[in-house]
Amino acid sequence: MTLDEIQAYLIAEFPQVFGKPGIAVDRAADGVAALHFTPGEEHLRPGRIVSGPTLMMLADAAAYAALLSLPADARMAVTTNLNVTFLRATPADGAIVQEARVIKSGKRLSIIVCEAFGADGAVLAHATMTYAMPIIAPVS
Amino acid sequence: MTLDEIQAYLIAEFPQVFGKPGIAVDRAADGVAALHFTPGEEHLRPGRIVSGPTLMMLADAAAYAALLSLPADARMAVTTNLNVTFLRATPADGAIVQEARVIKSGKRLSIIVCEAFGADGAVLAHATMTYAMPIIAPVS
Amino acid sequence: MTLDEIQAYLIAEFPQVFGKPGIAVDRAADGVAALHFTPGEEHLRPGRIVSGPTLMMLADAAAYAALLSLPADARMAVTTNLNVTFLRATPADGAIVQEARVIKSGKRLSIIVCEAFGADGAVLAHATMTYAMPIIAPVS
Amino acid sequence: MTLDEIQAYLIAEFPQVFGKPGIAVDRAADGVAALHFTPGEEHLRPGRIVSGPTLMMLADAAAYAALLSLPADARMAVTTNLNVTFLRATPADGAIVQEARVIKSGKRLSIIVCEAFGADGAVLAHATMTYAMPIIAPVS
Repeated sequence: MTLDEIQAYLIAEFPQVFGKPGIAVDRAADGVAALHFTPGEEHLRPGRIVSGPTLMMLADAAAYAALLSLPADARMAVTTNLNVTFLRATPADGAIVQEARVIKSGKRLSIIVCEAFGADGAVLAHATMTYAMPIIAPVS
Repeated sequence: MTLDEIQAYLIAEFPQVFGKPGIAVDRAADGVAALHFTPGEEHLRPGRIVSGPTLMMLADAAAYAALLSLPADARMAVTTNLNVTFLRATPADGAIVQEARVIKSGKRLSIIVCEAFGADGAVLAHATMTYAMPIIAPVS
Repeated sequence: MTLDEIQAYLIAEFPQVFGKPGIAVDRAADGVAALHFTPGEEHLRPGRIVSGPTLMMLADAAAYAALLSLPADARMAVTTNLNVTFLRATPADGAIVQEARVIKSGKRLSIIVCEAFGADGAVLAHATMTYAMPIIAPVS
Repeated sequence: MTLDEIQAYLIAEFPQVFGKPGIAVDRAADGVAALHFTPGEEHLRPGRIVSGPTLMMLADAAAYAALLSLPADARMAVTTNLNVTFLRATPADGAIVQEARVIKSGKRLSIIVCEAFGADGAVLAHATMTYAMPIIAPVS
């Protein structure tokens, strides 16, 4: 899928997160994707820092976009493992930039590395995700 | 905190997820917590299965409740690592039961193991979380 | 495989770790395995605590034994993901007991949860592993 | 520590892995380290592929070297979490190059990202590690 196709697909399938104001996919090609997102009040936790599940959602979204940018049909790929390490508290001001890069595109499993960056460029979170690719039924 | 205190605190601090209809904390004592949640349309992904970020949010919520049930003040504890393994696609029907158990309660780090169960009792996801405990400023 | 078959197989294939004095598999049936191991000088790191890679090796060995105890042929299964959380420094005295339990046995992926215990019964490490099962070539 | 100091320290403390023929640290400065290692028969598993614990040991060694190259005294730092994703079976021929990069150097926790590469340059494994830094006792 191209960037435009990925945007349209994500907005159609996940209107609650990709509809505006929400996640904007800025790049998605050759297994690399980048998006940005400005958290709202509902994404904050005590201390006015961005909640962990919000950052995981961004990692998942960027990984999915990166996978969709490759030739194999990844729409029905499902996450089998997510590991996120949070490096620092994410303040509630300004946009978060989330990047993802497919480091293995396999027939059965694909692996994606994700990093989130704050407005000052600091790394906020590092994630590694595994997706199980859909089983292609052989033509009989 | 007691179960009632934890419920009230979570609803006050996270009204978007713990307000009704949302996450209901059923048990929280001695480092063990259980909650249940019925996913809505906004928690589904293509194929009508519950999205990964929804399950991560449940694991995070149960882990936080388990931590809050212990004597140390964990309100300002922050997640430093989350590892989730998804065992099977979670169908969109019926409630998800999420359990969490603190396996280490430390001065600096606490570790919590979480499992989500479907309506039929099958394990849906297994998660391990690390929280950094708040730094207690020494009285001068 | 039975416990005796698993022991014999592991000693034949991994003599460096399962030969005596080494890892002894105490139980392996129905997807649950337990083994014990007494670390030597070569398994210690500065501070005379058991090294992380030693504990990972024990988790991997127990997970493999648990998988081998199930009906599907898992000899050629390969680890695709390991997540280990270390709960406390493991002192160099006495045996470590390592347990593993298959929580999902799938055609493509199997998931195993592992815990290591010290001589005093305290949990030393919690691990989650994913194995990719061997691809069974269809008979043509 | 400088590269020479790190080499000498690792050989003194871990003669079983850093003595020759073993792990050679090629670079270690400013939180980035690289080493190489040629697996022997004892590092193989059935199918003549390099065992998972061997790759985890390399990730741990490179992460430790990267941490030692920074100003803070990291000798007594301990691993609290390791997540490794294996991308492909590692054949038994030729050297493995293991790299590590500190992405957060904190007072309490440090985070390191590690990648292993085969002789053909392909990524074999991606790991994320968390180390708890030693507690500096205040001078009274």
